[in-house]
Amino acid sequence: MQCMRTLEWDPKNNQLRMIDQRLLPQRLEYAAYTTYPEVARAIQEMVVRGAPAIGVAGAYGMALAAMSIQSHDRETFLSELDQAAEVLRQARPTAVNLAWAIDQLLQIAREIPGGIDEIRATLLDKAHQMADEDVAINQRMARYGAELIQNGDTIIHHCNTGALATVDWGTALGVIRMAHEQGKQIHVLVDETRPRLQGARLTAWELAQYGIPFDIISDNAAGYFLSSGQVQKVMFGADRVAANGDVANKIGTYMLALAAFDNEVPVYAVFPKSTVDFKLPSGKVIPIEERSPDEVLNIQIQGETIVPSGSTARNPAFDVTPHRILTACVTECGIIYPPFYLNLARILKT
Amino acid sequence: MQCMRTLEWDPKNNQLRMIDQRLLPQRLEYAAYTTYPEVARAIQEMVVRGAPAIGVAGAYGMALAAMSIQSHDRETFLSELDQAAEVLRQARPTAVNLAWAIDQLLQIAREIPGGIDEIRATLLDKAHQMADEDVAINQRMARYGAELIQNGDTIIHHCNTGALATVDWGTALGVIRMAHEQGKQIHVLVDETRPRLQGARLTAWELAQYGIPFDIISDNAAGYFLSSGQVQKVMFGADRVAANGDVANKIGTYMLALAAFDNEVPVYAVFPKSTVDFKLPSGKVIPIEERSPDEVLNIQIQGETIVPSGSTARNPAFDVTPHRILTACVTECGIIYPPFYLNLARILKT
Repeated sequence: MQCMRTLEWDPKNNQLRMIDQRLLPQRLEYAAYTTYPEVARAIQEMVVRGAPAIGVAGAYGMALAAMSIQSHDRETFLSELDQAAEVLRQARPTAVNLAWAIDQLLQIAREIPGGIDEIRATLLDKAHQMADEDVAINQRMARYGAELIQNGDTIIHHCNTGALATVDWGTALGVIRMAHEQGKQIHVLVDETRPRLQGARLTAWELAQYGIPFDIISDNAAGYFLSSGQVQKVMFGADRVAANGDVANKIGTYMLALAAFDNEVPVYAVFPKSTVDFKLPSGKVIPIEERSPDEVLNIQIQGETIVPSGSTARNPAFDVTPHRILTACVTECGIIYPPFYLNLARILKT
Repeated sequence: MQCMRTLEWDPKNNQLRMIDQRLLPQRLEYAAYTTYPEVARAIQEMVVRGAPAIGVAGAYGMALAAMSIQSHDRETFLSELDQAAEVLRQARPTAVNLAWAIDQLLQIAREIPGGIDEIRATLLDKAHQMADEDVAINQRMARYGAELIQNGDTIIHHCNTGALATVDWGTALGVIRMAHEQGKQIHVLVDETRPRLQGARLTAWELAQYGIPFDIISDNAAGYFLSSGQVQKVMFGADRVAANGDVANKIGTYMLALAAFDNEVPVYAVFPKSTVDFKLPSGKVIPIEERSPDEVLNIQIQGETIVPSGSTARNPAFDVTPHRILTACVTECGIIYPPFYLNLARILKT
C-alpha cells in the first residue's frame, strides 16, 4: 500500500489510472480512463469513492476534458469546459470536494491569460498538485488526530476513509494508521457499512495490510458495544460539512454518532478543510443522494437471494450528523472543538 | 397465512411441525420434530425464532421429552425431565419466553398427583393451550396497539415480529396488520436487520402476503428517514423486558429507538406480559447471546464474497433499549406508559 496511490496519472499514455475498488478485496486492479465522461461514470459507479479521492478524480477529469476539447477559440473552449464540469459535478451530488476541485480548475482556466495549450498544461499541473496536497494534508490530519488516541483504545470506524478514500493515507483511518505506526495498541471495530459494505470490503482489507487488529460488526451492533463500555472512540470522515459543523457522511454515521453520544464516548469527524461548505448554514440543506434500490436488494447469503422478489427499497447514501453530538473535528489545521461555527470559520481563513 | 401456524402439533404422528424459516422467502416448508434434542437444535439454528414462537416450541419440546422418557419411576422421570428442560433452556439464552414456558411445564409436571401417562398428557395439553393462548394474546395486543396508528402513518419496523415470530398473528407486526385490516393506509419501512436479515427475509415476505406497502431499508438508514420527518412511529418486539421497562430485543433495536427518540418520533415495544422478567431490576443484567461470526462474514453480493479472507467478526444477537427512550409498551393488558416499573408491576398482578 505504501507505494501505491488510489489514483495516479500515467504521463506516457495521458490517462488517469484508478484502483477499481468494486473488485476489492478479491482483486487489486487498476482501470485506465482517457475521457472525462468515463471518469464521471467511474465516480458514479463507485470505481473510485471517498470524498477526497473523487475530488482529485474530478480534477483529472477536467484535465482530460481540456485535452479532448477541439476548439481553438478560447470562449468556445471555456464554454465546452463548463459543460464537462457540469457532467463531472453531477456524478455525485453530496460530497463537496468534487464540486470544490472542479470549480477551482474552472476558475484557473478562466484566469489564465495564455492560449488553450497553456490552459491544458496548467489544469493537468493543478490536478497533480491537488493529488500531492491530498496526501500531505492527510498526513497532517493524521498526526493531529493520533494525539487523541490512547494506547489500548478500541475504536469504531464507519465506512472506508483510508488510503482508498483518498489519493493515499486516508482521513479517519489515516489517524488510526498513524497511531498504530506510533506504536499504540489499537483494536478497530469495523462497521460493515451497508448497503455497499465499504467497511467489510475495503476498511477490513486496509487494516489487514497495515497489521492493525480488527473485528467486523454489523452497523446496528455498534450501540451494543458502546453501551457495554467496550469502545473508547468513534471516528469517521465527512462528505460535506456545513458552517455550523453539521457533517454529511455515509449513511449510518448519524446513528453511530448518536449512540456514542448517548454513552459519552467521544465522536470525531476527520476531514480536510476543503470538505467544509461555508455557504451552507446547517446540514439540513445538504442534498442527499438516493442511489439504486438494487444496492439494498441484491444481498445474498451463501449464494441465496434473501429479499422476496418484487420487493422495493429506499437507499439514501448519506445522512447528516448534527454538530451538537460531535466531540471534535480533526482537520489539517488542528483539532476543532465547539463552537464549530466560530472555529471552522477561523481555519477557513488560514 | 391466515390458516397456517408457524408451529403446530401433528397428533397422528406425535410430532411438532414447524415452518423452516431459514428457507423463506424462497420456499415455505414444514420440518417435523419427534425428539426434544431436535427441537433444541431447531431453536438454536433458528428454524424457528421470535420470542413467543420459541416459547411454544420449548413447551412442545418438553411434551416430546415427557413422551420419550422411559422410566416408570416418578422421581427418575421428573429428574430426566429436568435435564431435558435444561437442554431446551440453553438453546437460546436471551429470550425469556423460552425459559418461562419450560418452567411452567416443569412445575405442572411436579404438581400433578397422577401417574406418568397423566403427566405426559397434561404437558401436551398445556403446550396446545400455550399455542392457542399465544394467538389470542397477540390479537388482543394488536387491537390495543392499532389504536396508536393513524391513517397515513409511515412506520419503521425492526426484525420480524409477525406471524412467523409467534404461533400466529404476531406482536409489533400484528399491530401493523390489525391497523391495515381496520382500513388504515400504512407504509412500512422494513429494517433489513443484519446479520440474519429477518426483516428483508421474513417481514418483507409477510407484508407482501398481507398486501401492506413497504420498502426495505438498511438498518443504518433509519436515522435519515427519522431526521427528515418521513416517519411517524417506530415499532418492534421484545425478547426480555426488565422490571424497569428496559427492553432486550434483536441487535439494532437500541440504535433505532435512540434515533427515533432524538427526533421525537414515538417508539413502541410490543410484547406479551410473559416477556417481562420481573426478577431483573434493569436491562444491564440481561444475558446477551453472541452468535457465530459467520453470520456477519458470509455476506455476498451477486455471488461474490465481500469480506477479506481471514477476517474476524463480533456478533451480539441482542441489545438493550433503555426504558427512558421508550414512549410506551403494548401488551395484552393494554398500553403501558411510564413509569414502567409501576405500570408493568400492575399488569403482572392481573
